[in-house]
Amino acid sequence: MSPVFFVFLIALIALVFAVFLFNKVYKYSVNNEKMISIAKAIRRGAKAYLIRQYKSVSVFFAIVFLILLFVSFSGHINKFLPFSFLLGGFLPALSGFIGMKTATMANLRTASAAESGLNECLNVAFSAGNVVGFIVVGFGLLGISVLFFFLKFWYTSVEVLSNDVFTQNLIMNMLTFGMGVSCMSLFARVGGGIFTKAADVAADLVGKVEIGIPEDDPRNPAVIADNVGDNVGDIAGMGADLYESYVNAIISTASLAAAAGLGMNGIIAPMVLSAVGIIFSVIGTFFVKTKEDASQKTLLRSLRSGTWISSGLVAIGSFFVIRGFFPSNLSFFCAVISGLIAGMIVGFVTEYFTSGTYSPVINLAKTSETGAGTIIINGISLGMSSTVWPVIIIGATVLISFLVSSGGLSSNLSFSRGLYGVGISAVGMLSTLGITLATDAFGPIADNAGGIAEMAKMDSKVRKRTDALDSLGNTTAATGKGFAIASAGLTSLTLIAAYVTQARAINPSIIYDFSVINPSVLVGLFLGAMLPFIFCALTMSAVGTAAMSMVHEVRRQFKSIIGLMEGTAEPDYETCVDICTKSSIRLMIAPSIIAVLSPILVGFFLGVTGVAGFLAGVTVTGFVLAVMMSNSGGAWDNAKKYIEAGNFGGKGSENHKCAVVGDTVGDPFKDTSGPAVNILLKLTSMVAIVSVGLAVTFHLI
Amino acid sequence: MSPVFFVFLIALIALVFAVFLFNKVYKYSVNNEKMISIAKAIRRGAKAYLIRQYKSVSVFFAIVFLILLFVSFSGHINKFLPFSFLLGGFLPALSGFIGMKTATMANLRTASAAESGLNECLNVAFSAGNVVGFIVVGFGLLGISVLFFFLKFWYTSVEVLSNDVFTQNLIMNMLTFGMGVSCMSLFARVGGGIFTKAADVAADLVGKVEIGIPEDDPRNPAVIADNVGDNVGDIAGMGADLYESYVNAIISTASLAAAAGLGMNGIIAPMVLSAVGIIFSVIGTFFVKTKEDASQKTLLRSLRSGTWISSGLVAIGSFFVIRGFFPSNLSFFCAVISGLIAGMIVGFVTEYFTSGTYSPVINLAKTSETGAGTIIINGISLGMSSTVWPVIIIGATVLISFLVSSGGLSSNLSFSRGLYGVGISAVGMLSTLGITLATDAFGPIADNAGGIAEMAKMDSKVRKRTDALDSLGNTTAATGKGFAIASAGLTSLTLIAAYVTQARAINPSIIYDFSVINPSVLVGLFLGAMLPFIFCALTMSAVGTAAMSMVHEVRRQFKSIIGLMEGTAEPDYETCVDICTKSSIRLMIAPSIIAVLSPILVGFFLGVTGVAGFLAGVTVTGFVLAVMMSNSGGAWDNAKKYIEAGNFGGKGSENHKCAVVGDTVGDPFKDTSGPAVNILLKLTSMVAIVSVGLAVTFHLI
Repeated sequence: MSPVFFVFLIALIALVFAVFLFNKVYKYSVNNEKMISIAKAIRRGAKAYLIRQYKSVSVFFAIVFLILLFVSFSGHINKFLPFSFLLGGFLPALSGFIGMKTATMANLRTASAAESGLNECLNVAFSAGNVVGFIVVGFGLLGISVLFFFLKFWYTSVEVLSNDVFTQNLIMNMLTFGMGVSCMSLFARVGGGIFTKAADVAADLVGKVEIGIPEDDPRNPAVIADNVGDNVGDIAGMGADLYESYVNAIISTASLAAAAGLGMNGIIAPMVLSAVGIIFSVIGTFFVKTKEDASQKTLLRSLRSGTWISSGLVAIGSFFVIRGFFPSNLSFFCAVISGLIAGMIVGFVTEYFTSGTYSPVINLAKTSETGAGTIIINGISLGMSSTVWPVIIIGATVLISFLVSSGGLSSNLSFSRGLYGVGISAVGMLSTLGITLATDAFGPIADNAGGIAEMAKMDSKVRKRTDALDSLGNTTAATGKGFAIASAGLTSLTLIAAYVTQARAINPSIIYDFSVINPSVLVGLFLGAMLPFIFCALTMSAVGTAAMSMVHEVRRQFKSIIGLMEGTAEPDYETCVDICTKSSIRLMIAPSIIAVLSPILVGFFLGVTGVAGFLAGVTVTGFVLAVMMSNSGGAWDNAKKYIEAGNFGGKGSENHKCAVVGDTVGDPFKDTSGPAVNILLKLTSMVAIVSVGLAVTFHLI
Repeated sequence: MSPVFFVFLIALIALVFAVFLFNKVYKYSVNNEKMISIAKAIRRGAKAYLIRQYKSVSVFFAIVFLILLFVSFSGHINKFLPFSFLLGGFLPALSGFIGMKTATMANLRTASAAESGLNECLNVAFSAGNVVGFIVVGFGLLGISVLFFFLKFWYTSVEVLSNDVFTQNLIMNMLTFGMGVSCMSLFARVGGGIFTKAADVAADLVGKVEIGIPEDDPRNPAVIADNVGDNVGDIAGMGADLYESYVNAIISTASLAAAAGLGMNGIIAPMVLSAVGIIFSVIGTFFVKTKEDASQKTLLRSLRSGTWISSGLVAIGSFFVIRGFFPSNLSFFCAVISGLIAGMIVGFVTEYFTSGTYSPVINLAKTSETGAGTIIINGISLGMSSTVWPVIIIGATVLISFLVSSGGLSSNLSFSRGLYGVGISAVGMLSTLGITLATDAFGPIADNAGGIAEMAKMDSKVRKRTDALDSLGNTTAATGKGFAIASAGLTSLTLIAAYVTQARAINPSIIYDFSVINPSVLVGLFLGAMLPFIFCALTMSAVGTAAMSMVHEVRRQFKSIIGLMEGTAEPDYETCVDICTKSSIRLMIAPSIIAVLSPILVGFFLGVTGVAGFLAGVTVTGFVLAVMMSNSGGAWDNAKKYIEAGNFGGKGSENHKCAVVGDTVGDPFKDTSGPAVNILLKLTSMVAIVSVGLAVTFHLI
C-alpha cells in the first residue's frame, strides 16, 4: 500500500469518526421549546454570518484565481496552481462551516445534558469538540493526499515528467494550496474575531453597564449576536486557524525535502507522521471521562490524560515512521520529540501566566486595588514578561532539531536537512492536534450552552455545570493557544527557508546576500517588525468600530421597543446580528488585504533579499507580540474571574470594575489580534513563496 | 590647524556659551522667600537623588573597569580601553548633573520672570534650556576630541605604531568610550524615569484621587518628590540620553571608516560635521524671541524658526565639510541631507500623532465616551499605527544614504562605504542637537516653575504663563523624541555593521554566515525581538512597585501628621524623596544589568552569528516598540489635556476620569520604558562590540 494511500485512509477514518460522534450528539433529545427557539436563532445567525463571510471572501478568491490563471496561461507557473489555491481556500471554509454546524447543534444539547449531570454534560460537549477536532485534521490530510494523488496520477499517466520536475511542481502546488488555506483562515479568524468581540463589547456596554441587566439576559437585543459570536469566532474561526497550522506545518516541511536531498520520502513522511498522530488522538479520546461531581482538578486531569496518552503513543509511533522513511537518519526522531515536548511546555507556560490558580494572575488581580490604570500597566507588563519562555523554548527547539538533523553531511545539504528537521519538529508538535483541538473546542460550546440555559431560565444548577466546563475550557484553551503560536513560529521559520530555496531555484546564477547587515535585508526586517503592529492596530480598532455600530442599534431598541424592559415585548435580535455581520465583514478586509499584499510590495521595492528580511521580521516580532497579547488578554480575563469568585472585594466592588476595564482591553488582544497574528506569520511567507518569481524579476533595488 | 583641534575649540565654545547663559539666568534675582525655600527643597532632593544614583552606578563601573583592566593586563585588549570606558561613563553623568543644577536654579527664576511677562519667562526658560543643550553637545565633542588627541599623542610620540594598528586601537577606544556612555545613560534614563513616574503616580493617587486636593498642593507630602522627578528624569535623564545619541552616532560612523577605505578622514569627518552643527545651533538660538501675549502658534513658530535656520545653515555648511574631506565623494552630502530631512519628518509625524491639534488625539479623546477600556484599546492602536511612517522614513533614509554612498567601487569596499553613509545620515540628523535639545529642555523647567508658583501661592497669571510654555514644551518634546528614536535606529544599524566588521577583523580566516536563514541568526533574532519587551515589562512594573512604596508613606503622613490637611503642619517631604530615591535606584538595576549582560550571554550560547541576529532583532523590534510606546503615551497625555481644555465634558467629567486612566498607563510608556529602549538599542551593540573577542573564542554553538 502506498504510504499516501494510508494517509488518505486515516483521513477518512477521522471524518467517519467525526460523523459518528456528530450523530451520537445529534440523537440527544431536547424537549424545552424555549431552548430550541433560542438555539435556532443562534444557529440562523451564525449560518447567515458565515455565508455572507464566504461570499465576500469568494470575491477575493475569484480575483486571485483569475490572476493565477492568467499567469499560468502565459506559461510562467504550473497550470494546476490556480486550482490548488481554490482547493486550499475551500477546505478550511468547509471545516469551519461544519464546526459551526456542530457547535450550534450541540450547544442546546449540552445545556439539556447538564440537567442530568456533569458527566453527561461533559460527554456531549466533549463529543462535539471531538467532531470539530477530527473534521479539521481529517479534511487537512484529505486535502493534501488528494492533491498528491491527482498530481501523481497526472504526471505519471497523462503527462509524464522527470522526477525532479514532478517534485518541483508538486511542491509548488502544495505551497499554493497552503497559501489558499492561509488566506481563508486569516479572513475567518479576523472576521470571526471582530464579530465575536464587537458583539460581546456591545452587549456588555449597553446591557450590563448602561441598563444594568445581567449577562445573557434575553431582554438584551445583542444577546443572540453575542452567542453567535462564540460560534463564528471561537469555533469556525479557530477551526480554520488550526486547520491552517496543521496543514502548513506539513507542507512547509515537505517543501524542503528536495533541497535536503530526501526526495519523495521527505515529502511523504510529514503526512504519515500526522496520520499516525490521528490514530493515537482517536485512541486518546476514549480516556476522557469523569465521575459525577468531580472537582475542577479531576476534570482537568481527565482531559489531560487523554492528551498525554496520545502524545506518548505518538512518540513511540513516530520512531517507527522515521525508521521506515529514513533508516539511516534517526535524528529526525529527536526533532519529533523536541517538538512534542516544546508544545507541552509552551502550553504549560501559557497556562501558568493566564490561569487564576498561579501567582501571576492573582498578583494582577491584586493590582486592581490601585485603579484601572495600574491593572492595565501590570497586565501589559505580565504579557511582555511571559514572552521569555516561549522564545527560549522555540529557540532551543530550533537549535536542537537543526543540529541533530544536520550532522554528518556535506555543507549545503546538511544545512537544508537541518531546516527540514525544524519543520519535522513542528509536525511533531501538531500531530496530536485532533485531541488537543477537541479539548479546546468544547469550551465555547459549554459557554454557549450556559448562555442558552440563562436565556431559557433553566435551573441554576445547569448554569453551574456549564460554567464549570467553560472555566475548564479556558484552561485547556491556553494549551491550545500555546500550541498554535509555538507551531506558527517553527512553521514560519521553515517557510523562510522554503522561500530562499525557491528563490534560488528560479535562477541559480544569482547570488543573494541574505546577511543581516545587507541594507535591503535590514530595511525588510524593519518593515516586517512593523507589520504585526499595524495588523493588530487595524484589527483592534475594527472591534471598536463594529462595537460602536451595534451599541447604537442596541440603544435604539431599548428606547423604541415598548415593553422590552418589562419582558412583554421581544427585542429584534436579527437586526443586531445583521449589523454586526456587515461591519465585521467590511472591517475584516483592510487588515487581510494588507497582509496579502505586503510581501508582494516589499518584493517589488526591495527584491528577494528584502523579502527574506521582511519575513524574518514578521516572524520574530509577530511571535513575541502574539504571545504578549494572548497572555495579557488571558490574564486580565482570569483576574476578573478571580475577583468575581469573591477575592479582593468580589463582584460589584470597585476592584471588580477596574478588572472589567482590563478584561475589555484584553478581549480584542486575546481573541482578535493575537491569534490572527499566528496566521499572519505563515500567510506572508506563503504569499512570498508563490509570488517569488515576481520578486526575482521585477524589483526596484 | 588640525581639524580635531577645530572640533575641540568648538566644543569649548559651546561650553563657554553655556556658562555665559548660566550666569545670565543666575543673575535674575528672586525675592519671594517662599519660592526660594521650595526651590531649595527641590534642588536638595534632586542632588541627593543624583548623588546616590551615581554612587550605585559607580559600583557597576568599578566592576566593569576592573574586568577590563584584568583583560588588558592579560594582553587581550588595548591598555587604554578601561580608561576610555570610565571617561565615557563620567561625561554624560557630568552633563546630567550640570543640567540638573541648571534646571533647579532656573525653575524659580522662570516662575519669577513669569510675573513680568511671557517674553521674559520664555527668555529665562529657553536660556536655561540652551545651557542643557550646549553642555551636552559641548561635553560630547570635548570627550571624543580629548580621547583622540591623547591616543594620537601617545601612539606617535610615546609608543609609535603603524597607521593601521593605530586606527584599530583608536576605533576600539572610541567604541569602549561609547559603551561607557551607553551604560551611564541607560542607568540615568531608567532610574530617572522610574523616579519621576513613581513620584507622579503616588502624588496623584493619594493627593488627587484619595484625599481630593489639587495638583502641586503644598500639603501633599509627595509634591516635592514629584518636582524633583521632573529634574532627575526629564532633565538629567534626557540629557544623558541625548548625550549618548549624539556621541554614539559619531563613534559608530567613525568605526566604519577603516573598512570603508576612508582612513583618518573618515574618522574625523563626523566630528567636524557635528562641530559645524554646534556653530549653527548657537546662531539659531538668537532667532528665538517672542512678543508679549503671543499666541501658542506664534511661540511655536519662534522656536521652530531657530531650529529651521540652524538646519538650513548646517545643510550648507556640511557641503563644504564633505567637499573638504571627501573631494571625490560628494555623495555623503546626500546622506547628511537625507538624515536632516528624515529627522524633521519623524518629528512632524510624532507631533501629528501626539498633539491635541490634530485628529488622532481628538478622536482618541472622543473614545473616552465609551469608557476607560476603549480609550486604552484605541490609544494602543494609535501608537501601533503611528509606527508606519517612522519605519518607512528610516527605511528610505537607510536605502538612500546607502545607495548614494556605495556607488562605483569594488564590491566589499562599496558595501562598507554605503554603511558609512548610513552613519553619516545619523550624524547629520543629530548635528543640530544643541538647539533641538534646548527647545525640548525648557519644557520641564517651565513645568517646574509652574509647580513652584502653585506651591508658593503666586498670582494665577504666573501659572497661566508657565502653563503656556509647558504645553509648548510638550509639542517640541515630540520633535525631540522623534529625533532620539530616529537617530537611534540609524546609529544602531551602523553599529551592527561595526560589530560584523570587528568580528571579522579578529580572525579573518573564519567565514561567518550572517544570513537570516542560518538558525543561530534566527534564534538570535527571536531573542533580540524579545529583549525590548522584557526590558519594558521590567521598567513598567518598577514604576508600579516604586509608586506603591511611596503611596504607603504618603498615606501614613496624611494619617499621622496632625494639622497637615489644615495647613498648620508641614509634611515630611524629605522622607518621600528618600523612599522614591531608594526604590528607583534599587529597581533600576535589574533591567540595566539584563541589557548589559544579554549580548554577552547570546555570544556565549550562539556565537558571533547569533549576536548579529540578536542585535538586528533588538534594533527593529525595539525601534517599533519604542515609537509605539512613546506615541501612545503622548497621545493619552494630550487627549486628557484636550478634555481638560473643556472638550467632551471637560475636567471632572466621567470622560475625563477615563482619560486619566489612559494617561496613567501612558506615563511609564512615554517617560520610562519607551525612551529607555532607544538607549537599549545602542547599548547592546556597544557591549557586543567590546566583548566580540569573547564571542569569537568561546561559544557553545
